[in-house]
Amino acid sequence: MQHIAMLGGGFIGRFYAESLQGQRSRDKVVAIYARREETAQKFAADYGCSFQSTDMEAVIAHPDVTMVCIALPNNLHAPAVALCAKHKKNVICTKPLGRTAAEALQMMQQVEEAGIFGGYLEDLCYSPKFLKALETVKSGSLGRILWAKSRETHPGPHSDWFWDKEQAGGGCMLDLGCHCVEIARNFIGKDVRPVEVMCWADTQVKPIDAEDHAIALVKYENGAIGQFEVSWTFRGGMDLRDEVMGTEGTIWINNFLRTGFEMFTTGTAGDYVAEKAESNAGWLFPVGDEVNDLGYNHMFTDMFRAVEEGRDAAETFYDGYVVNAILDAAYQSAETKQWEPVQL
Amino acid sequence: MQHIAMLGGGFIGRFYAESLQGQRSRDKVVAIYARREETAQKFAADYGCSFQSTDMEAVIAHPDVTMVCIALPNNLHAPAVALCAKHKKNVICTKPLGRTAAEALQMMQQVEEAGIFGGYLEDLCYSPKFLKALETVKSGSLGRILWAKSRETHPGPHSDWFWDKEQAGGGCMLDLGCHCVEIARNFIGKDVRPVEVMCWADTQVKPIDAEDHAIALVKYENGAIGQFEVSWTFRGGMDLRDEVMGTEGTIWINNFLRTGFEMFTTGTAGDYVAEKAESNAGWLFPVGDEVNDLGYNHMFTDMFRAVEEGRDAAETFYDGYVVNAILDAAYQSAETKQWEPVQL
Amino acid sequence: MQHIAMLGGGFIGRFYAESLQGQRSRDKVVAIYARREETAQKFAADYGCSFQSTDMEAVIAHPDVTMVCIALPNNLHAPAVALCAKHKKNVICTKPLGRTAAEALQMMQQVEEAGIFGGYLEDLCYSPKFLKALETVKSGSLGRILWAKSRETHPGPHSDWFWDKEQAGGGCMLDLGCHCVEIARNFIGKDVRPVEVMCWADTQVKPIDAEDHAIALVKYENGAIGQFEVSWTFRGGMDLRDEVMGTEGTIWINNFLRTGFEMFTTGTAGDYVAEKAESNAGWLFPVGDEVNDLGYNHMFTDMFRAVEEGRDAAETFYDGYVVNAILDAAYQSAETKQWEPVQL
Amino acid sequence: MQHIAMLGGGFIGRFYAESLQGQRSRDKVVAIYARREETAQKFAADYGCSFQSTDMEAVIAHPDVTMVCIALPNNLHAPAVALCAKHKKNVICTKPLGRTAAEALQMMQQVEEAGIFGGYLEDLCYSPKFLKALETVKSGSLGRILWAKSRETHPGPHSDWFWDKEQAGGGCMLDLGCHCVEIARNFIGKDVRPVEVMCWADTQVKPIDAEDHAIALVKYENGAIGQFEVSWTFRGGMDLRDEVMGTEGTIWINNFLRTGFEMFTTGTAGDYVAEKAESNAGWLFPVGDEVNDLGYNHMFTDMFRAVEEGRDAAETFYDGYVVNAILDAAYQSAETKQWEPVQL
Ligand SMILES: NC(=O)c1ccc[n+]([C@@H]2O[C@H](COP(=O)([O-])OP(=O)(O)OC[C@H]3O[C@@H](n4cnc5c(N)ncnc54)[C@H](O)[C@@H]3O)[C@@H](O)[C@H]2O)c1
Ligand SMILES: NC(=O)c1ccc[n+]([C@@H]2O[C@H](COP(=O)([O-])OP(=O)(O)OC[C@H]3O[C@@H](n4cnc5c(N)ncnc54)[C@H](O)[C@@H]3O)[C@@H](O)[C@H]2O)c1
Ligand SMILES: NC(=O)c1ccc[n+]([C@@H]2O[C@H](COP(=O)([O-])OP(=O)(O)OC[C@H]3O[C@@H](n4cnc5c(N)ncnc54)[C@H](O)[C@@H]3O)[C@@H](O)[C@H]2O)c1
Ligand SMILES: NC(=O)c1ccc[n+]([C@@H]2O[C@H](COP(=O)([O-])OP(=O)(O)OC[C@H]3O[C@@H](n4cnc5c(N)ncnc54)[C@H](O)[C@@H]3O)[C@@H](O)[C@H]2O)c1
Repeated sequence: MQHIAMLGGGFIGRFYAESLQGQRSRDKVVAIYARREETAQKFAADYGCSFQSTDMEAVIAHPDVTMVCIALPNNLHAPAVALCAKHKKNVICTKPLGRTAAEALQMMQQVEEAGIFGGYLEDLCYSPKFLKALETVKSGSLGRILWAKSRETHPGPHSDWFWDKEQAGGGCMLDLGCHCVEIARNFIGKDVRPVEVMCWADTQVKPIDAEDHAIALVKYENGAIGQFEVSWTFRGGMDLRDEVMGTEGTIWINNFLRTGFEMFTTGTAGDYVAEKAESNAGWLFPVGDEVNDLGYNHMFTDMFRAVEEGRDAAETFYDGYVVNAILDAAYQSAETKQWEPVQL
Repeated sequence: MQHIAMLGGGFIGRFYAESLQGQRSRDKVVAIYARREETAQKFAADYGCSFQSTDMEAVIAHPDVTMVCIALPNNLHAPAVALCAKHKKNVICTKPLGRTAAEALQMMQQVEEAGIFGGYLEDLCYSPKFLKALETVKSGSLGRILWAKSRETHPGPHSDWFWDKEQAGGGCMLDLGCHCVEIARNFIGKDVRPVEVMCWADTQVKPIDAEDHAIALVKYENGAIGQFEVSWTFRGGMDLRDEVMGTEGTIWINNFLRTGFEMFTTGTAGDYVAEKAESNAGWLFPVGDEVNDLGYNHMFTDMFRAVEEGRDAAETFYDGYVVNAILDAAYQSAETKQWEPVQL
Repeated sequence: MQHIAMLGGGFIGRFYAESLQGQRSRDKVVAIYARREETAQKFAADYGCSFQSTDMEAVIAHPDVTMVCIALPNNLHAPAVALCAKHKKNVICTKPLGRTAAEALQMMQQVEEAGIFGGYLEDLCYSPKFLKALETVKSGSLGRILWAKSRETHPGPHSDWFWDKEQAGGGCMLDLGCHCVEIARNFIGKDVRPVEVMCWADTQVKPIDAEDHAIALVKYENGAIGQFEVSWTFRGGMDLRDEVMGTEGTIWINNFLRTGFEMFTTGTAGDYVAEKAESNAGWLFPVGDEVNDLGYNHMFTDMFRAVEEGRDAAETFYDGYVVNAILDAAYQSAETKQWEPVQL
Repeated sequence: MQHIAMLGGGFIGRFYAESLQGQRSRDKVVAIYARREETAQKFAADYGCSFQSTDMEAVIAHPDVTMVCIALPNNLHAPAVALCAKHKKNVICTKPLGRTAAEALQMMQQVEEAGIFGGYLEDLCYSPKFLKALETVKSGSLGRILWAKSRETHPGPHSDWFWDKEQAGGGCMLDLGCHCVEIARNFIGKDVRPVEVMCWADTQVKPIDAEDHAIALVKYENGAIGQFEVSWTFRGGMDLRDEVMGTEGTIWINNFLRTGFEMFTTGTAGDYVAEKAESNAGWLFPVGDEVNDLGYNHMFTDMFRAVEEGRDAAETFYDGYVVNAILDAAYQSAETKQWEPVQL
């Protein structure tokens, strides 16, 4: 039974809370930190938190809290982890872990030194379809894995800080590519070293410094190829698809736009169809149960069981660090126009 | 926090237990009744029950038990409910509630008289896609509902008792039609009276007395039409689809065979692809998270919250009774070859 | 090489002409009859006809014409056939053949007596998917056929005469059901007698006398069940789907809304997405090659080869007559609320 | 009306003949060249050719022949074109035009100098879905095109010569990539210069020198990105998909495995499900009308109309040359691991 402090009451903080307290959960979000008083108050009211504050350290240090959940902009992940280490509070952090591998490495080391639990909230590596696919791949049904690709494209983020390179650390590649990299890495095998990366990235549409579209190949030491396609310029909703190809078979996963739920309406549908949906008339493709289908439930279950059983979660700070290292190489490759080595 | 006694350790009993104790649930299955000692023992070991017995009444009466969950063959639902009434234990019962409306009515009355909670475990009216669709329909996005149909077909049941009319009470129409009837009734509106039923049913393939294929139309007092198609002779897995058509739109739900998860394998896949899947090579269509996608999680959440909040669940014994009444009319129509009135 | 006279320059007349003269066809539409001069003129100009007239008999009798193609409102099929018989011109007639079986029977007899060729233009029994499916069924891959269903629903017809019972002969059941009946009959086997029909039909939405929604079951002498679902009240485009279920397999065909061509656009798409499409923004589902995918090409090829080889086409006036007889029984059943025998 | 000489009586030669003489075509294959006497004889018998020979020049020079269709292994395209030029016969050549851009350039120049018609048989740029998509793109419905990708993967070719680098000129990249490159180039615009290419290619599975898997990015001068994914190691049939993404919309095309035709069979289906299908039991995805759906009909119609109207076809020898130039750069990039310029 976990008593969770949520840091950040924005989009993902609320999504996490829905999952954490959804269904018949025994865990609870007991405290909330937000930058603005109203946000904290609203969050506390909505999810029944007993403690709220605009002082991050006070929330982390609060004696009722057994687990800190970081749901803040990317540049605040490291400072928040440092405070958790200081107060020896177990911590789980949203993606991407750091803005760079250097930042992620430091976070990982602080957690290790503090002897606290560090879980990396890579929800798409916990979606039910992904978990079943991974099990299938591990059972050998697809033979040797040759190619794993993942794609996330949507019309662009909802908050301003995503567009600021200092806070965000990058564009769509860091924001979305971190999911894709870890999905492919899981299918190819976490014990297989990523060797080098070739990447194209460009700013084709949005009025920003950072890239709004990127494609990359990640070569693994056993010859397998990881691939990602990410964009903030896609029109049509949120496209979230994975593919794995092996010598004996193939798996195709569609997490969002085509999941067996189709709807046509002439008028106005209910407010919220699904994350990043673009319209509420015509043919729409809602998602049945986003918090479950996107992996949040299985993710928190694994995180909390891991803590309680004294083991690592399936997705650790080390994994977050590897993802950052691969993305660092991708950013470099986009500039040098060459394959760049992954530095681990 | 519920302490549940499971009656029946077969297919659905185990499925329910997976859901009840899956993720981070605060509820627990504490006792198990099964006809055979080994079944009870294995179930108790697998799900950590502290009490097991081949004496149904002993399990129901056990002081730790706050809620009884009936997962027994159809002919045992009524006797089990009677025992719950006797011992004043809240009860939730799998589908179909009774073998006939008369039986269901009696069960409903016993529950009412005992003043206990009676929930009808119609999971497909709790699947995430269904819940979202129902919300959409209620919000008016589809306009006035004209037609709601539901289909469940698969290659036939796994246990012998299904083939015995005395135990099962009927063939595929009672077994599968009960889901379909309630799905359509929800979309059309539970406050709208079902008036009459026209049904065709036949035994086309299986060596049984009961029907292995049936199609029926249910006319509602407002002119809307409910429809179901059920069969135990379908080849290709389990086909579970719903459609709602209104004056302003339409919804199509596919719960099983096409949910955005596709796989090809030349060899042998993992053991269990999905309920009623027929093969483990070639193109396969696994389901990500059956206990969630089929509605078990949301169903138990609603049941237990209802008890705790002193309200009815979304699916009650009354609903189970209406379903039985509609199916009674369907069976009669299949014989008389006429539209038959629904007797409520 | 056929020299065709087209009777009717409306929706289907033009569609037929596109098919007849599409690709590298050796056949030609040489003459056009239309009620209004302008229509005839425009058609003649568009398709290069050398003769045009508002006098039907003049067109049929024209010496260059070797084949007459009837594309007129339903009430004019019989008079047009009578003229073809009089002038001994081979004739192909759009669906439905007659407004009733009595009318169709007379048309069939006139053709026989005149010794001319009579082809029934049931294009959906010539669509490439249908032809391949039928071949598969005949090869035995699906085992014994138990159930064949077909569905055609769309938001309603484009011309006024469809709403006039005298000209149209009925509502959506005659208009769309004729396709569905013949599709199911083909799958079950043309040599298997349709015995009786149970039908529900209603006017749920449109301000018309005729039915705008109907569902029926057709029982065949070997126990197989044909089924159709037709409606002029569907929102979302044109839904055209068939299913065949046998003891060893199943076939699902989607002819229109989901054919592997998906498109999202924020703005305005080209004028014509597909027959009966309802919008030009959001997610759209165009059809690649309507004249081919709806069977027109294969239909005319069979018709003309049949004439040239002195054999019957796959779809004859007799088939059109059987379809009318089944629909007559369906209309009767909708009134009597009983299974009604098919009178052949 | 064209009198065609077919060079090559193998897989594609027969496919072309089916298209050329399918439906009500006015054109005819009058002559056949094949290396082996029996092949020529069988082909001539099957398609009613009046002249057959194992002497290529005799066939090309035959006075009845107005058009030569090259359906030979890749290394024989150039010699065959040279003979057409010598005998001043119009020529249409299957893909890829040459094994290299140098070879293609020479072919193009010979055709120009001889003043004959040269058409490039890139059928996938004539498939009905592609044509409609291209029209949509050109109408502006997708806004400015940012990204166009195409994928062709299957389990590997059917004839030995494909595995011989001398005859084939390359592996799956030349064989399949030529389609993909031209598809993307059409969507981005043929007037937009392809600037440079980044490619990964490897031999992951097959016992061959040439690559059996390749992925590449093609950068165009306006910033748009073309992408292809090709493989001979895919298990599950033939996967043929295109995607176009623009600032205002997106198009997804599936040409083969998911086209609205789905089938399950326990037993053995008819012989031929579709090109490169891997099994004949379980879930299968047949294609309705391959010759039409893969573009052959529309391709030959355009080619012959072009000749008759004295204009270029939509796909010319110049286009074939550009495709070869892009693929040359891709092969170079796979070796140098850098972006390589497209030399035109
Ligand atoms: N796992 C996923 O699928 C997923 C999805 C979305 C976002 N995220 C991650 O979650 C994090 C937050 O993203 P979001 O979408 O919730 O953003 P958001 O803008 O919706 O919410 C961010 C929250 O942080 C607070 N905040 C912003 N700037 C702050 C500052 N300078 N100091 C203190 N607090 C500040 C905001 O008030 C807000 O409560 C990011 O790291 C993002 O990458 C993960
Ligand atoms: N909600 C759903 O989707 C769903 C799915 C499957 C079954 N069900 C329902 O669940 C019930 C059980 O079905 P199942 O599939 O689990 O069947 P099953 O045969 O797998 O299991 C039945 C259980 O009841 C026990 N049992 C059988 N006969 C008995 C007897 N005479 N006395 C005492 N115990 C006996 C068996 O030992 C077994 O443990 C049925 O009512 C069925 O309709 C519901
Ligand atoms: N096979 C198919 O898929 C299909 C599709 C649509 C229509 N149809 C059939 O085609 C026929 C025509 O339908 P349509 O959709 O082309 O209709 P339409 O209204 O578009 O065209 C009908 C044509 O007949 C002419 N016409 C109308 N009334 C007339 C009259 N009283 N006298 C002489 N000419 C008259 C009109 O001027 C017009 O040229 C109908 O029988 C319909 O069932 C078949
Ligand atoms: N457009 C498409 O979609 C498509 C599809 C398949 C093949 N192709 C192309 O068509 C061409 C032929 O491929 P295929 O699949 O038909 O191959 P195939 O092996 O099936 O047939 C090749 C034909 O050429 C003849 N041939 C082989 N070697 C020869 C030689 N040394 N001298 C003379 N004749 C010889 C063979 O006898 C055979 O008749 C290739 O260029 C290929 O790339 C195009």
